[in-house]
Amino acid sequence: MIKTDILIIGAGPTGLFAVFEAGLLKLKCHLIDALPQQGGQCSELYPKKPIYDIPAYPEILAGDLTHKLMEQCKQFEPGFTLGERAEIIEKQEDGSFIVTTNKGTKHQAPVVAIAGGLGSFEPRKPLIHNIAHFEDKGVEYMIKEPEMYRNKKVVIAGGGDSALDWSIYLSDIASEVTLIHRRNEFRGHLDSVEKVQELKNAGKINLITPAEVIGIVGDKKVKAVVVKQAQHIEKEFEIECDHFIPLFGLSPKLGPIANWGLEIEKNAIKVNNALDYQTNIPGIYAIGDVNTYPGKLKLILCGFHEATLMCQSAYQIINPGKRFVLKYTTVSGVDGFDGTRKEAPKAVVKKIE
Amino acid sequence: MIKTDILIIGAGPTGLFAVFEAGLLKLKCHLIDALPQQGGQCSELYPKKPIYDIPAYPEILAGDLTHKLMEQCKQFEPGFTLGERAEIIEKQEDGSFIVTTNKGTKHQAPVVAIAGGLGSFEPRKPLIHNIAHFEDKGVEYMIKEPEMYRNKKVVIAGGGDSALDWSIYLSDIASEVTLIHRRNEFRGHLDSVEKVQELKNAGKINLITPAEVIGIVGDKKVKAVVVKQAQHIEKEFEIECDHFIPLFGLSPKLGPIANWGLEIEKNAIKVNNALDYQTNIPGIYAIGDVNTYPGKLKLILCGFHEATLMCQSAYQIINPGKRFVLKYTTVSGVDGFDGTRKEAPKAVVKKIE
Repeated sequence: MIKTDILIIGAGPTGLFAVFEAGLLKLKCHLIDALPQQGGQCSELYPKKPIYDIPAYPEILAGDLTHKLMEQCKQFEPGFTLGERAEIIEKQEDGSFIVTTNKGTKHQAPVVAIAGGLGSFEPRKPLIHNIAHFEDKGVEYMIKEPEMYRNKKVVIAGGGDSALDWSIYLSDIASEVTLIHRRNEFRGHLDSVEKVQELKNAGKINLITPAEVIGIVGDKKVKAVVVKQAQHIEKEFEIECDHFIPLFGLSPKLGPIANWGLEIEKNAIKVNNALDYQTNIPGIYAIGDVNTYPGKLKLILCGFHEATLMCQSAYQIINPGKRFVLKYTTVSGVDGFDGTRKEAPKAVVKKIE
Repeated sequence: MIKTDILIIGAGPTGLFAVFEAGLLKLKCHLIDALPQQGGQCSELYPKKPIYDIPAYPEILAGDLTHKLMEQCKQFEPGFTLGERAEIIEKQEDGSFIVTTNKGTKHQAPVVAIAGGLGSFEPRKPLIHNIAHFEDKGVEYMIKEPEMYRNKKVVIAGGGDSALDWSIYLSDIASEVTLIHRRNEFRGHLDSVEKVQELKNAGKINLITPAEVIGIVGDKKVKAVVVKQAQHIEKEFEIECDHFIPLFGLSPKLGPIANWGLEIEKNAIKVNNALDYQTNIPGIYAIGDVNTYPGKLKLILCGFHEATLMCQSAYQIINPGKRFVLKYTTVSGVDGFDGTRKEAPKAVVKKIE
């Protein structure tokens, strides 16, 4: 059982900033995210794209925003359960909550903050009749740990940035990389498309287009995929492989959270924006894109504000009756849970002779 | 008469970010500030101090925060009335407001957003019986335009960072700089104290301590100050000068805004935080540290959020009946009023052969 003060569902920008604000109040956080890395949409959907409306950043790449937020909160030593989806919530007699993921990991906290963005990102799966049988037996819809592909034969399917970027990345690690796409045209960053072209010319990536994977061969695990090529004459053949990775994008779904008894409106969780972004269940908050209230804007900067007010309110639940006096970081400095301290240089009092 | 869409009282971080958010909605802003430069407290009180709780900035100097916000909003060409205090507001028959400053400058807009921080910063004045007579006739409590001191004889009084920093700065511009402080000890950044010591040793700053200016001599303008020195024997003498600049700090006052008919609570303006941060007077909003509501935190990041929601609501007042669809800057890019355009590089669709 993982225990913490504030259990945050979602490790996107709002969830990460909540770690920092909680830390200022000496509260510890643990984050659960269905994606294999921090950053939410920013890291998963558009890490290389610029955002122009983060306050005081005339321009910042979404991936860099994640790095900055990680750097800002790391001194408060957040815990992470990544690549798992929060599924079940149970209220305990002592008022705390236990949240269990799809992999069975259990977390307990007096406060739960849902910072789930657009929901958990579910991979779009190809229509292959026996694919479910091979999930986690050679079929992966997301790459969590590139090292597991070292010296393996890998088939990637897809025509967007993920398929391009992972083909490039794995061409150095896997013993064989085959990229299959149903068109000859790829849609992605110019750099990535050009790099794949180079690697193909150098014989480091096998490219099969236009083609589709239509079946999987194997017993306990993937041994080969069946490819249907549609160039001049339609033909089918098998490619031996250890892994088949269809990268057809992710679509966000509110998912199991929708069944937690929270008041839902337009696929978002209703909160009390006049006070602290708490939901209809006391002790459960919703912050960032996942919540809704009159005038709600799904902007990252709004999530930062909501996270901050949530932490103040959570403090009262976790420390009933205790009063917390807001201090300015410029004046008080920041004490990390890891023993680090940041503070403004003090003014000196010095005689001039 | 200066006309604009949103008239912002206060050019601190919240006011500056409002310019950017308004610009995304194609609304123009004009800002009034009692201080001679943008940035509010950040620029005036602690430009060299780090802030640790601006989201995605593990550390940023307050002065740099101002520069970043100016850079972010400059494409929306805000207008500024600086060094003037908003004094009188008058509602017009067409629903718009006219705001007049203490110097008589008039501004008209359908929406007024008060982003006044802790209030307008009023200088602390020394108790010299005839000082009021010489205000703007050689006595200045703030330095607005350093060039006006070129080749002049200047007497600065004070013992903090402002007095130290301006003595250093003007030692290159003025023909003579005298720094007077009632103690031998100065309180400021180590660098500044050391630099003044150096300049004193080099004969570029006259230092008189412990001493006080107790009178001003002159007719239509300052000709000299009377200094009382209290070292061994108390003695009084005159120092010829063109300017006397007492820099004893600033204290914030809500000021004339307190008489605008707004609902005030604990020296702050009450707003409707459940919707759009509007005050009790329709068309007048209050955002940032100047406002109050249940759970209010006086944090810059909260001002950013409040500014953003205010702009959305102001849009409805300025464009009644028109619907604005929120677009993400990453997707839509940002079109400046100055003709500039920022946008994310587009994905290419390209064949790999």
